[in-house]
Formats: sequence, structure tokens, C-alpha cells
Amino acid sequence: MNEARIERAPGFRIDDPFWSHYLRMVREVMIPYQWEALNDRIDGAEPSHAIHNFKIAAGRETGDFHGMVFQDSDIAKWVEAAAYLLESERDPALEQLVDEVVDLIVDAQREDGYLNTYFTLKEPGREWTNLAECHELYCAGHFIEAGVAYHRATGKRKLLDVVSRLADCIGRTFGREPGKLAGYDGHQEIELALVKLYRATGEKRYLALSKYFLDQRGAKPHYFEQEWEKRGKTLHFPQLSMVHEHTYSQSHQPVREQSEAVGHAVRLVYMATAMADVALETGDEGMKAACRRLWESITAKRMYITGGIGSMEQGESFTTDYDLPGDLAYAETCASVGLIFFAKRMLELDGGSHYADVLEKALYNTVIGGISLDGTSFFYVNPLEVYPDVLGKNKNYNHVKAERQGWFTCACCPPNAARLLASLGDYVYRTREDTLFVDLYIGSQAEVELKNGLVKVEAQSTYSAQGQVRLTVAPSPAQAFTLALRMPEWSDGVEIRVNGKILEDPFVNEDGYMRIQRIWSAGDQVELCFGMPIRRMKSHPLVRQTYAKTALQRGPFLYCLEEADNGKRLYQLRLAESASFRLEQAEGLPGDIPALVTEDGYRLRLGEAWTDQLYGSGGQAARDAARLTFVPYYAWANRGIGEMSVWIAEGNL
Amino acid sequence: MNEARIERAPGFRIDDPFWSHYLRMVREVMIPYQWEALNDRIDGAEPSHAIHNFKIAAGRETGDFHGMVFQDSDIAKWVEAAAYLLESERDPALEQLVDEVVDLIVDAQREDGYLNTYFTLKEPGREWTNLAECHELYCAGHFIEAGVAYHRATGKRKLLDVVSRLADCIGRTFGREPGKLAGYDGHQEIELALVKLYRATGEKRYLALSKYFLDQRGAKPHYFEQEWEKRGKTLHFPQLSMVHEHTYSQSHQPVREQSEAVGHAVRLVYMATAMADVALETGDEGMKAACRRLWESITAKRMYITGGIGSMEQGESFTTDYDLPGDLAYAETCASVGLIFFAKRMLELDGGSHYADVLEKALYNTVIGGISLDGTSFFYVNPLEVYPDVLGKNKNYNHVKAERQGWFTCACCPPNAARLLASLGDYVYRTREDTLFVDLYIGSQAEVELKNGLVKVEAQSTYSAQGQVRLTVAPSPAQAFTLALRMPEWSDGVEIRVNGKILEDPFVNEDGYMRIQRIWSAGDQVELCFGMPIRRMKSHPLVRQTYAKTALQRGPFLYCLEEADNGKRLYQLRLAESASFRLEQAEGLPGDIPALVTEDGYRLRLGEAWTDQLYGSGGQAARDAARLTFVPYYAWANRGIGEMSVWIAEGNL
Repeated sequence: MNEARIERAPGFRIDDPFWSHYLRMVREVMIPYQWEALNDRIDGAEPSHAIHNFKIAAGRETGDFHGMVFQDSDIAKWVEAAAYLLESERDPALEQLVDEVVDLIVDAQREDGYLNTYFTLKEPGREWTNLAECHELYCAGHFIEAGVAYHRATGKRKLLDVVSRLADCIGRTFGREPGKLAGYDGHQEIELALVKLYRATGEKRYLALSKYFLDQRGAKPHYFEQEWEKRGKTLHFPQLSMVHEHTYSQSHQPVREQSEAVGHAVRLVYMATAMADVALETGDEGMKAACRRLWESITAKRMYITGGIGSMEQGESFTTDYDLPGDLAYAETCASVGLIFFAKRMLELDGGSHYADVLEKALYNTVIGGISLDGTSFFYVNPLEVYPDVLGKNKNYNHVKAERQGWFTCACCPPNAARLLASLGDYVYRTREDTLFVDLYIGSQAEVELKNGLVKVEAQSTYSAQGQVRLTVAPSPAQAFTLALRMPEWSDGVEIRVNGKILEDPFVNEDGYMRIQRIWSAGDQVELCFGMPIRRMKSHPLVRQTYAKTALQRGPFLYCLEEADNGKRLYQLRLAESASFRLEQAEGLPGDIPALVTEDGYRLRLGEAWTDQLYGSGGQAARDAARLTFVPYYAWANRGIGEMSVWIAEGNL
Repeated sequence: MNEARIERAPGFRIDDPFWSHYLRMVREVMIPYQWEALNDRIDGAEPSHAIHNFKIAAGRETGDFHGMVFQDSDIAKWVEAAAYLLESERDPALEQLVDEVVDLIVDAQREDGYLNTYFTLKEPGREWTNLAECHELYCAGHFIEAGVAYHRATGKRKLLDVVSRLADCIGRTFGREPGKLAGYDGHQEIELALVKLYRATGEKRYLALSKYFLDQRGAKPHYFEQEWEKRGKTLHFPQLSMVHEHTYSQSHQPVREQSEAVGHAVRLVYMATAMADVALETGDEGMKAACRRLWESITAKRMYITGGIGSMEQGESFTTDYDLPGDLAYAETCASVGLIFFAKRMLELDGGSHYADVLEKALYNTVIGGISLDGTSFFYVNPLEVYPDVLGKNKNYNHVKAERQGWFTCACCPPNAARLLASLGDYVYRTREDTLFVDLYIGSQAEVELKNGLVKVEAQSTYSAQGQVRLTVAPSPAQAFTLALRMPEWSDGVEIRVNGKILEDPFVNEDGYMRIQRIWSAGDQVELCFGMPIRRMKSHPLVRQTYAKTALQRGPFLYCLEEADNGKRLYQLRLAESASFRLEQAEGLPGDIPALVTEDGYRLRLGEAWTDQLYGSGGQAARDAARLTFVPYYAWANRGIGEMSVWIAEGNL
């Protein structure tokens, strides 16, 4: 029997010329599509088995477990995403579906609180014996996130109670005390989830358990080796080295001592997210410092210009400083989702706009670039350069696709992107005492709580396309607070009007925010008009793959060349150092984001005499004028299979 | 008991300012070193076990087989190389060693002629059940080559008899007749060896058997699938897909229908070598045409400028047309050795100088580049661009080493290079009727047989360093013949003197050879002085990785930039389009091959203001003048670990 919804006003509703498209897509396409996928009803796609596994575990159906060892987490992420949708807009049919899933989860949970269909069905009795590889705590973490989200959205406690029992089961099992397992998960996730559960329930034991998992990580002797010995050296993924390669799971060192972003990118950012959460809750300076070092390592040395992270397919991993190949990039969509989680926590911990800049970069480029414009297909891997002719022939590119795929055997990215987009409202504002921070400029209605009371905020925004935002506040009653407006790193200046009156010399604070302090009354308006130059971006001199090449950026969007506009053999194109651009309306892009077009490009052409020989002393290359059209990176691969490149070499005309 | 040597005059002796170094190294360093390695006496190197396996198989020692399934072939290659050394210069101690190995082989051979220590010791009863993976015929082929070579060198028949019995055992086992296995080897080699055996013995059944193996390849239903089903679907290399990926072993199509160089590069060129041999012996036009298509596919579309082949590590394979990444290159030393075999056969079949050009390119660059200047360490993989900082961190480069290694678990390359170098004399001249073709200009004394009798030829050569050669002929008696002199593709002109008198307007025939027809007497001299410009090479416009970049070549040598001369971060360097070069004596290079030095280079420098950020709109790059020093590619990585790059981007000064 389903419990009653506790009616509450929607906290946040997005109405934005760019983002509404994505929210609509999540609601109307992705969540229904993913529901069908979880129920194995998508023709031609690998069946998920996720719901079926639960039905077997709940005793409602018979059969065997199928799917990855972490298949359960797809359901958890779907519930979480659905919860965020329900939070901003009622949808009784969707809520009914979620309630049914919650009942299924209730039935699949064991008496002692344990919840994992893989072990319940396939390896009963071997629970908690292979943390390195088997994702039990990872899946638990996702259920906890779902339970917290659904409670926040509807006030319904059933799933929150389920995941609290699950967390208590975990708490009884893990710890340094005698009789407990002094382990931690191979794939971090439980740590950040437990902080959410702590915040939702106020139960400090969940925060302590999160802190335990973080602090225990990397202890010697190594837990993954110990449990491996103990279980007879069996492996779940024999082709991988999750047990012995400790950098892969960031368990090579205690987390407080880590300074470099190594190993599996998603794991790293999920871990760092929890570290920042715990640092915020506890004020732990050592943990804070480690968060800052990891942030620096990622964003100053190991991140693609699109906000993608993880330079190599092997281990879905970071490699080393300044090693950022565009064609071999892994840059998993999930890793950029995780980077956004981490950025959000760093904003809360440290409050500098550079965190929001990275958050915005990952969101506007890699995350939505992972989704087709119609919401039905997805990239797992987000390269910065693709030559389709070589795919399937040179196996170094086996992970790279030139077109988005319907669903994946390891289907982590689509539901992860969905839950992020559905909760986008969480990333727009922050409050601290009497200051309202505006981190993202997304058209929306919101209600935020400041020191002196509730404030309604409406944002009307053409920020994505034109850099303009109008904020209307409605405190009730009138109250003094500070509006802290993020100055995006890509902007060369801003004009601000308060109730129509220009603000002279807006001052950007050291933290990257411009502050307006006053007593605000209902209807007060702030208008922002950000300068939105076309920026010719360069990479750090130590990034050899893109050295002295240019990538174009306008506003939060990185751009790329596509074969559809520029013909084949993009590597032959050059951009004049003096090129000027015009904005050209591109058809069919959300929010009417323009294309960038220049006549100041050229195509190098080797001597006329070049015939069939592979090498020759053919003399200098000639230059044929070429119009170059750059489209936003997020929109690539929506016009059939073709070449793509973010970076272009420069030259003199 | 060892049989007596039949004394014969050495057919060929090298005395060359460039090549003598390598021959000496093979004789004094590589062959002794490899002997120690085969006997597991190299400290710090993986033991080979090869001799020990034979001693066990011969009943002289006890123990288990160790090593790769094709470990035997290392001994065969060593014997073959030693035989070539003995052919050009007596060495009783070495001959004694070889005789002992021959006796060991005799004792290890089974009654029925079968010879393979892996199956004899480790899987008796399973002979010929896994041709796809287990290299039995491959090892047999190498023994046959060794037997033929040792017979040619010494006149001793013992090993030739052993391998004839082995070939007869194979002939009784394989064929299309009922009761025989209609199979062929996963790794081609037996085919070319059987042609050698046919030529050495005159027995046509060996040619027929070779032709059978070629023609049976690619027949449907697929033999590898059939034998796999039959043996219960076991795999020797479960991580590879030798059974099911038929392009890997070029068994996806009948060989006469093949047009593209696909799959494992060494296998392809070994197969093509045999195809050309069989086409030459039989006049088979279909086979000839297939050889030409494969040659074209390799050399016009899939070969590095260094003569390396195989663009990817996965499968040690070709990828697709014009896909030639320099940093990820596999370009196995053995594959270039095999390309030389193929080129030599194509020269004999078709006679165009372009075959010799490729032969020379592979020999002077990749093959000797695979060997350290002191002959003690070896590259298996020969990249065209190396950044050591990323090796071991980005796993895409796991196959790439920045320094040569002592010996390998899969030790095919060092003995393969040794046997090629030891038989270098075979590649210098060709005869056809009354024409003596000079394919390579290597200082040497030789005796060749022409239609009208024997001719002694002495070549004095500074061809490698200066492009000059003096040929002195001594026919006995004086006789008419044609001297056909190859015009190297890299030369822009030649001055020829016959007995001191300049030859006006030397005419290069359509086949790339200049012919001098006359009655020659003892002491007649021809002097050649080839123009040796520094060539700025470009790659075909479809090679995206090196598009519009430049590689320097002088004579047969490709050049590269090394960190030792040019500092770190070679990717920041540019070469002016108008650069002029000087030759600078490089210390310690064989034959005094000069370095190429220019002051017309520069190092791009991003704006002064570049600090720690990963990306920025830093404006134009500045240009700092930089002296660039290019050293011959074959000599790279002899001065410690450092960056290397063959290709450099161009720019205006």
C-alpha cells in the first residue's frame, strides 16, 4: 500500500529557452524510455533485466539474475531522477510508477536490511566478500540517494526507511571495531550518499559511517588484497585488475594524503564529492586541503576543455598531467556528472566562482553532449576529435563511437545524466547567511531561504544564447540581503541594472562574485548583460596534443568543426590568426545557440602534383580559402556520422 | 659425429664504412649474445629455455618445456644467422657450436620426421590440432630455412636432411587428399621455407606443398573454426582471437583474391614473400597480380616513412588506409625484416627499382633502428614519436619503449634482424641472363654468375654518407654483359664515370635502372656519384596524423629530432619553410652519417602571461629562434631516454 504524498510547493521550476528543452526531454523522453529499458521493452537494445532481477528477488517472479553486478543501481538512479521531476512538477502517473518500484524494493530487501539482487539471487552467502569488484556499497549508495530524493520530493518515507535500514545494516557490518569488516567499496558512492542520508534524517551515525569509509580507504595492509586472499583469490572481472591496481580505485593512499587525480575518473570524483561533504560538515582541515589538491590536479592538469575527464579507455582513467589526447579520450559522461557533484560541494566548501566555471563547462558541453538532441541516444565516451573512417579498423578507438547509442550493457551514463538534469535546480543558487549566490543563470522560479526569511526569485534568461539575465526577487516581507552574482570566466565585462538603473563599475570580488547589498522589496529587478566574446582558446604549453591549436568558445559553449558543415578531412583546415567571425543562426539547436562562421579559414593543399605515392618531397602546401563553420560541441553528431574536431591549427592567411 | 665441411670460396664479403659495423656487431656481439640468451645465461633477462627444451626433447636432460609455443624458432633463426656468417667468413668455433646444435636437433627429431619441442614435451598426441594458434608449421619453416642456409654455407647435409624429413612429414600430413588435414598454419612461414627447400634440393614436391598451403588458405568452411570445434573449443591464447578473427592471419579470403594488407603485419609479408616466390617459380599470373596488389596496399597506403609496417599494437596489425599514428605505431622490427623479404622477391618477379627503394628504406631505418649501436639491445616496436613522460602512465602506449631492451619473452626480433644482416649480401646484386643488377650499393667483394660466366665484383662505397660508389668488375675472361645500376628514388641526379670517363646523360630506364652494356674486362671501373639532397618529405594528403608536416631525409636515411639535441617538448618546435641546413659531423655514428642542422627553426611560445591555468585565451604564440638538430632515425635512443619525433610542423619564420 502506498503512503500519501505530503503536499509541498515546488521548490524550483525551470523555464529557460535553453534548458527547458532538456528538462522536457528528461520528463517526456528519457525517463519513460529508461523505464521501458529497465523493463526490457526496447527493441534492438541489450535487455537491462534490472526490474526483472528485483521481481525475482521480491519473490514475485522466477528466473536468474542477469546483467552487470551493479545492475541494481540503474533502478536507483531512475527513481532518483523521477523524484527530482516530481519535486518540480506533479505527475501522478509517474509517482504511481515510482511507488510501485518502491514497493518492489521493499519486497526485495532482506530482513536484516541488506539489499542487492545480484548477491541475493546469484551469490547468496558471499555478500561483502568482494568489495573491490562487486559494487555492493555502490548500489547501496544509489538507493540511499534515491530514498533521500523521493522523500524530499513527496514527503513519503517508505523508501527513506528502506535505505535507512540498509545503511544500518552496512553500519553493523563495517567499521574498525572487532567483528566488523574494516573494508570499503571498490567504487566510491556510499560515502556521498551517507552524507545525504545524514542531512535528510539528522542521524549523525550516517555521517560517521561516511567518514569511516573515507578514512579507511588506503589503509595498510590493503583490504582488497586481504579479502581476495580470504575468498580464495577468485575474481569477478578477471580481465581487469581491481584487486591489485590500487590507484584504479584511489585506495593506494589514505584519501587525505592524495594529491593527484589518478585511476577511474568516476570513482575519483564521487570520492572527492564525499570528501568535500565531510569536510564541510566536520570542518576537517586536512580533508579540505586534500579536496583542494584533487580539484587542482583535475582542473589545472587533467581535464579536457569540454569539462570531460579521464584520458584513457583502459580503466576509464586519468593518465598523467597534461596528457589529453582528443581522439583517444574517454571523457565518460558519468565522470563529468561526477565532476559537477564535486564542483558543487567545493562551491559550498570554498565558494569561489572558478568552481562554478568548471561546473558550467562540464554541464554545457560534455554532459549534454552525451545526449542526442531528441533525448533517445547517448554517448558514454565523449571524444574531442573523431575520424569515423578509422573507427572499427584501428582498435585503439574501439571505445569511440561516431554516433550515440540507444542503451548500454553498462548503462550508467543515461540515468546519471537524467538525474543530474532533473535536479538542475540544485545547482543554480546557494545561500549562506544573508547572501544569495547565483551560480548558474538558468531561467527559473525558485524559493530560497535566507537568514531573514523566504525569498522568491524569478530568473528570465537568454544567458546561453545572448548572455542576458533578468532576476526578479520577491522577499516577503522586504528584507536586507546580498545578491552575489557570479562573473563567468568567459565574459569580458558585464552591464548591470538594478530596477533599470545602471550600476556603475560593478566590482568583482576576489571569489569571482559581484555583490549587491540592499533592502530588497517584491518586484525588484536586476538585469545582467554579460559580454560574450568569441574566445580563441589555447591549452597549456605542456599539453602536447593541442599545443598552439585553437578551440573556439562563446559563452559557456565550446565549439567544434563538423564534417556536415566543413566537408571531410578536417585536419587539413587552418584558422587564420586574424580571423573574424559572424554568428549564424543554426537550425534546430535548443535555445537558438548560434553557429560561428568565418571566411578566414583555409584548407591546406599539397602540391598539385601529388598522385598516389605515400611520401614525396612535394614542396610547400598551397592554401585554398575555406569558410569554416563551428557548431556547439554539445550538439555534435546529430546530423549523421561524420568527422568532428574541437581543436584547429592556426596559420597565417 | 659431425660431417666434414665442403670448402667453398665465400660468395660475398662485406667491407663497407657503414655496414661493416653492423656485420661485425652481428658476428661479435649479437650472435654470441643470442647464444648466451638461448642458453639462459643472460643476467637479468627473461630466460629463453630454448636450448634446454631441445635437450629435454633429445633425452639429454630432464624437465619441462618452458617458453612460448614458438620458442623453437629462436634456435632456428640463430642457426640460420650463424650459417650466413660462416658463409662469408670461416669461424671454426662458431661452426662447432652450430654442429652441436644440429646434433641436438637431430636427437630431438622424432622417427617420423616431426620436430617441435613444445608438442613433444608438453602436449604429445595433440600435434597438428591447433594450427591457428600453435605455430608448428611456422617453427618447421624456420628450421627449413636454417637447414638450407647451413647447407649453402658449409655443404653439410645433416640439417638439410633433418628438415627434408620434417618437410616430408608435413607433406604426408597435409593436403586435400582423403586422410590428410586440409589445413595451413596460423602464422605463415612454412610457405616461403618450402620454396627455399625446393630450390636447395630440386625436389618439386616441396614447391607443390608450398603452393598447397597458399592456395588452401581462406578456403571455406574455415579450417581454424573446424579444428577448434574438433578439439573441444580450447584456446592456447584465450586473450587473442586467432581462431575467429580471420583477417588477423590473412585467412579471411583465398590469397589470390586479397587486395588489402590486413591483420598481423609479419604474417602478411611472410605470406606475400612466398606468394611471390611461387609466382616466380610457376609463372602464375593470378598469384603475381595478388602480390602486386598487396605490395601496393602496403607501400602506397599503410607504411610508415621509416619502412615500418603495422599501425597498431592490437594484433600487431595493419589498420586501414592512411592511418599512420607515429606515437602509437607498432612497426615491429620483424615486420620490416619481412617487408625486405617481400621486396626482394618482388624485385626478382617484377624488377622495378621501387621495390629496392622500399627495401632500402626498411633496412636503413626501421631494421637497424631496432638495434642499439652496440648491438646489445633491441626495439620490438619502432615508433616515430615518443614522449617518455607519458609512457607507463597512458596505457595506450604500453607497447612503446623509449629505450631498447635486452631480450624479450617473445624474442622474435633480435634473431630475425641478425639473420637478415648476416645475409645482407643476398640483397645487393641480382642477375638475369647477361645483366647484373645492382640493387644496393654496399661495399663488398662478390662473385656472381652471369650467362657468359663468373664475374668478380668489388664495390667500394661511401654511398651511405656521401652517395659515392666505385664498382670494379673482373670477369674471367672478358665478356659482354649489362650492368644495371639502380637510381635511388631519393637522388636528384647522378654522375657516372666508366674507367674515369664521364658517361653523358645517363638514362634511367622505366624500371628505374641505368644500364651500361659493353664488353667488360678485369679491372674495369664504374664510379657513381649520386646527388644527395636534403629532402623535405611530406605524407599523402590523406594521412591525417602527419598532414602538412615535414620529415627530413638524406640519402636512404630518415631523420628525427631528439631531446638530447633539441631539449624537451619537441612538439613546440617548428621548421621554417625556407630553412637551410648544414651537415654536421655526428660523433659515434657508423659510417660517419652526418647530422642535419638548421638555424631556421623556432620554438613556439604561448603568451608570457601563461601561468598555471589549463586553458586560456592567451593570444598568439610568439616565436623564439631555435637551432634544430636532426639525427638519423636508425640511431635514435642511443643517448639515454628522451623525446623523439620524425615529423615536425612547418611554419613561416
